[in-house]
Amino acid sequence: MRIDIITVLPELIQSPFEASILKRAVEKGIVEVHMHDLRRYGLNKYNQVDDYQYGGGAGMVMMIEPIDKMITELSADRKYDEIIYMTPDGETLNQGIANQLSLKENIIILCGHYKGVDQRVRDLYVTKEISIGDYVLSGGELGAAVLCDAVIRLIPNVISDETSALTDSFQDGLLAPPVYTRPAEYKGAKVPEILLSGNLPKIDEWREEQAFKRTKERRPDLLTDD
Amino acid sequence: MRIDIITVLPELIQSPFEASILKRAVEKGIVEVHMHDLRRYGLNKYNQVDDYQYGGGAGMVMMIEPIDKMITELSADRKYDEIIYMTPDGETLNQGIANQLSLKENIIILCGHYKGVDQRVRDLYVTKEISIGDYVLSGGELGAAVLCDAVIRLIPNVISDETSALTDSFQDGLLAPPVYTRPAEYKGAKVPEILLSGNLPKIDEWREEQAFKRTKERRPDLLTDD
Repeated sequence: MRIDIITVLPELIQSPFEASILKRAVEKGIVEVHMHDLRRYGLNKYNQVDDYQYGGGAGMVMMIEPIDKMITELSADRKYDEIIYMTPDGETLNQGIANQLSLKENIIILCGHYKGVDQRVRDLYVTKEISIGDYVLSGGELGAAVLCDAVIRLIPNVISDETSALTDSFQDGLLAPPVYTRPAEYKGAKVPEILLSGNLPKIDEWREEQAFKRTKERRPDLLTDD
Repeated sequence: MRIDIITVLPELIQSPFEASILKRAVEKGIVEVHMHDLRRYGLNKYNQVDDYQYGGGAGMVMMIEPIDKMITELSADRKYDEIIYMTPDGETLNQGIANQLSLKENIIILCGHYKGVDQRVRDLYVTKEISIGDYVLSGGELGAAVLCDAVIRLIPNVISDETSALTDSFQDGLLAPPVYTRPAEYKGAKVPEILLSGNLPKIDEWREEQAFKRTKERRPDLLTDD
């Protein structure tokens, strides 16, 4: 999988790709991530990429021309399955969307900044608009990092123990059950007996009950959807 | 505001705090962000912070002892308003929660990694559990960065033009209307006439209509909630 990220702040999301699972996925050659500084196509001697919005109002808007040129350059070399724009009014990311995207080959992720991009960019080039949640961030960069993490870790061989991803919250529509590790007692707080019993069928049953109970208490909406 | 982030991968979220709005908020002295490497309290000569889960199954669990020690150390110096644990089964972050947290003085954010933390940490120390969305990430670090960004930008004087944050999506329960900037025509794609008219009351009316229309099309749930 190849991911091209278009941003005005490539330095902002450098570190997430240089640590942990994303780093290993890149090193293993399973995924290629390329950052593209939009200012490379900025206009005039200031490398301008944004301007005041038509009709007045606070906040700058990212101009169409630099983005058009960047996408045109990238698209000349390969076909992209999706050109994704990170925006709070996009489709809300969930595990299903992450699963689908993990099957793609080439993706562009366009990070909005300031008040977002000129609407014509969205109308003409963008094929998918994604929000990571109902809150506003300073830009699309952190959203892009979150999207990459959610997607890349689902690609086979990225996480060493594949069952680990499959037992995560949301993969089966339930939240994960509580987990415990050593010591069995810490300052009087004990691990539930059942987990120490060695009775695997009973433990599985307990975990299923707990996952269901936790989902019912915290996220009943997950049980009633679809 | 002071934010203490407890993590096993401080290097993963270094760059978001060294760029753009978060950097400026720190430089202006409006917010202090401290990263704490949990391995400082790791056990034995390997600085162990995680172990296999009781009852078997894939994935490691973060142990209670190093976290207890880290929180105890921090709490000795000041009172924390919230000890937040980033977890996919927490309360889903939204703009309202971000607004509330932006009023706090001292916050600890605990980043889960692997399969998460020992349940006893959640029972005994954590006062608030937050998820940034219905998807699984490799760890809580990106979630913590997202939470910090969403919260810090709401603190007065962090964003230069305060009205900019107030007209963002979600602040008034609606998605933001489309935005446009120069040029008025690009390869045949035109900016809507109304935005070029200079008629501010009409432009406001158009924007309200567009915000409502976009919300109805994309996120009807925002209109029916409450």
